[in-house]
Amino acid sequence: MTSYLITGCSRGLGLSMVETLASMPKSEVGTIFATSRSESAALKDLASKHNDRVVTVLLDVLSLDSINAAVTTVEGKLNGKGLDVLINNAGIMGTAPGGAPAMKDLESHFEMNVLAPHRITVAFLPLLKAGNLKKIANITTTLGSITQVRKYTWGSSPAYKVTKAALNMLTAQYAIDLESEGFTVFCVSPGWLKTDLGGVEYADLSVEVGAKATLDKIIGATAKDNGGFLNILVKGWEKTDGPNQYDGLNPPW
Amino acid sequence: MTSYLITGCSRGLGLSMVETLASMPKSEVGTIFATSRSESAALKDLASKHNDRVVTVLLDVLSLDSINAAVTTVEGKLNGKGLDVLINNAGIMGTAPGGAPAMKDLESHFEMNVLAPHRITVAFLPLLKAGNLKKIANITTTLGSITQVRKYTWGSSPAYKVTKAALNMLTAQYAIDLESEGFTVFCVSPGWLKTDLGGVEYADLSVEVGAKATLDKIIGATAKDNGGFLNILVKGWEKTDGPNQYDGLNPPW
Ligand SMILES: NC(=O)c1ccc[n+]([C@@H]2O[C@H](COP(=O)([O-])OP(=O)(O)OC[C@H]3O[C@@H](n4cnc5c(N)ncnc54)[C@H](OP(=O)(O)O)[C@@H]3O)[C@@H](O)[C@H]2O)c1
Ligand SMILES: NC(=O)c1ccc[n+]([C@@H]2O[C@H](COP(=O)([O-])OP(=O)(O)OC[C@H]3O[C@@H](n4cnc5c(N)ncnc54)[C@H](OP(=O)(O)O)[C@@H]3O)[C@@H](O)[C@H]2O)c1
Repeated sequence: MTSYLITGCSRGLGLSMVETLASMPKSEVGTIFATSRSESAALKDLASKHNDRVVTVLLDVLSLDSINAAVTTVEGKLNGKGLDVLINNAGIMGTAPGGAPAMKDLESHFEMNVLAPHRITVAFLPLLKAGNLKKIANITTTLGSITQVRKYTWGSSPAYKVTKAALNMLTAQYAIDLESEGFTVFCVSPGWLKTDLGGVEYADLSVEVGAKATLDKIIGATAKDNGGFLNILVKGWEKTDGPNQYDGLNPPW
Repeated sequence: MTSYLITGCSRGLGLSMVETLASMPKSEVGTIFATSRSESAALKDLASKHNDRVVTVLLDVLSLDSINAAVTTVEGKLNGKGLDVLINNAGIMGTAPGGAPAMKDLESHFEMNVLAPHRITVAFLPLLKAGNLKKIANITTTLGSITQVRKYTWGSSPAYKVTKAALNMLTAQYAIDLESEGFTVFCVSPGWLKTDLGGVEYADLSVEVGAKATLDKIIGATAKDNGGFLNILVKGWEKTDGPNQYDGLNPPW
């Protein structure tokens, strides 16, 4: 029975991953720590429906105090057991209509998309070391691929792209440094999803499809994926005319 | 007569690039704005030897006030002309002996290696737009290549690698956004050099060789290099057994 902890579960991809996990057999998914900085009605609802295994925990990823308090809470609930899978999901994407030179949100994106996953990983590392799977999944985006920048010139989100590229390198560094202890650390691009961040009108996939495909990648990841940049696989989306391709193959960095 | 502005010229690569430029024919190199947060004896010395074209300017890259004051000073000295080439050179590299999980210097590296080049580029952009060449060179490192992380696992500098990968994406974003205005924005890896940062004992190349090879790349860059990740070319170092290769070819991101 695998235990999971996910950040940013009030809405969007985080909430949908909790829902997907909660619908899976109990032989596969144990306790799901659904963390958020404040409990949305949707998350409360979901947790009460699955109160045997969805455990809500307050965790503001920007606050060290909140991170440490969450570790104490989770440790208590785990009752001596370790944590198996950590999913760093919470993230922000702003826009800079004037392009990179007009960007005023680089610091806030760095704190949210890079520093927070680092701090959270450090804080939960003792529990993860005591876990069986030792998996850390960082939710990234193909927009963070430096090789593919020319594919994604529509939509000006330079701070998002810069900090997701940094998150990718952070992931690669953790992967190398924790490999000898049996960890599998990787990033996953969840596809362009109909969430507040992705935009409901134009995005490619429903959040449910994206959440399921993202979890498929996370659950399926093995040692060979350590340090990898995973992309979801969605039937019918393996090859498209547009820039978005959900073929399950690792994009270039 | 091309004008240059370089950050971090008190010592190391910055100082050596100023010296190399100052030794070049006046038909090729005009005013060299050698900026630093405080004037070292070596820089003062160099400036007084070449007082016809080396102009020292105080610029602490971590201070917005200092950046803005430097712009005013440089604008005054340019006397109505534009600035041709900006080289964002100042940078820091710390070590985390315990690897990524032990990293406590991610924020300071972000401020120095990513936020500062962004702020400096924004501040000097009006002068660069008025210049003839419109070149912006960001000094990066092959250690910032996510594709090549397995080549550089000796020496634990995760914060350096994470922030140089971010600088690479920042460069790619500027390249795309300024392309239509005739800019060439790129990053250059200057090689492993005998400086305080590189370490004088084990590094591959003297700072003079690195500075010359880096300037060769910067001076030689044309529109086709916009958004590129350039690596220096050094005779005899095109192919090595070790990880360091100065073959003049673009490394993968
Ligand atoms: N949607 C896409 O198309 C897409 C594509 C590629 C990658 N991604 C990545 O997928 C992840 C989730 O994105 P999404 O589309 O679900 O975004 P979203 O709909 O905007 O949801 C963001 C989530 O992050 C949470 N969050 C924000 N600040 C927080 C903080 N300080 N502490 C804790 N949680 C915080 C939000 O909580 P509040 O409700 O409290 O604000 C919310 O639960 C992000 O990392 C994003 O970069 C998304
Ligand atoms: N050396 C190598 O092997 C190597 C390899 C790849 C890339 N690089 C890159 O090359 C660049 C230069 O490195 P280096 O080897 O010359 O390093 P260095 O010898 O450590 O010199 C660093 C320079 O940056 C300046 N600096 C530090 N903080 C500053 C601030 N707040 N404002 C203005 N200047 C500041 C220093 O000035 P102070 O004297 O005032 O501290 C010094 O002039 C860096 O971007 C580095 O990442 C170096």
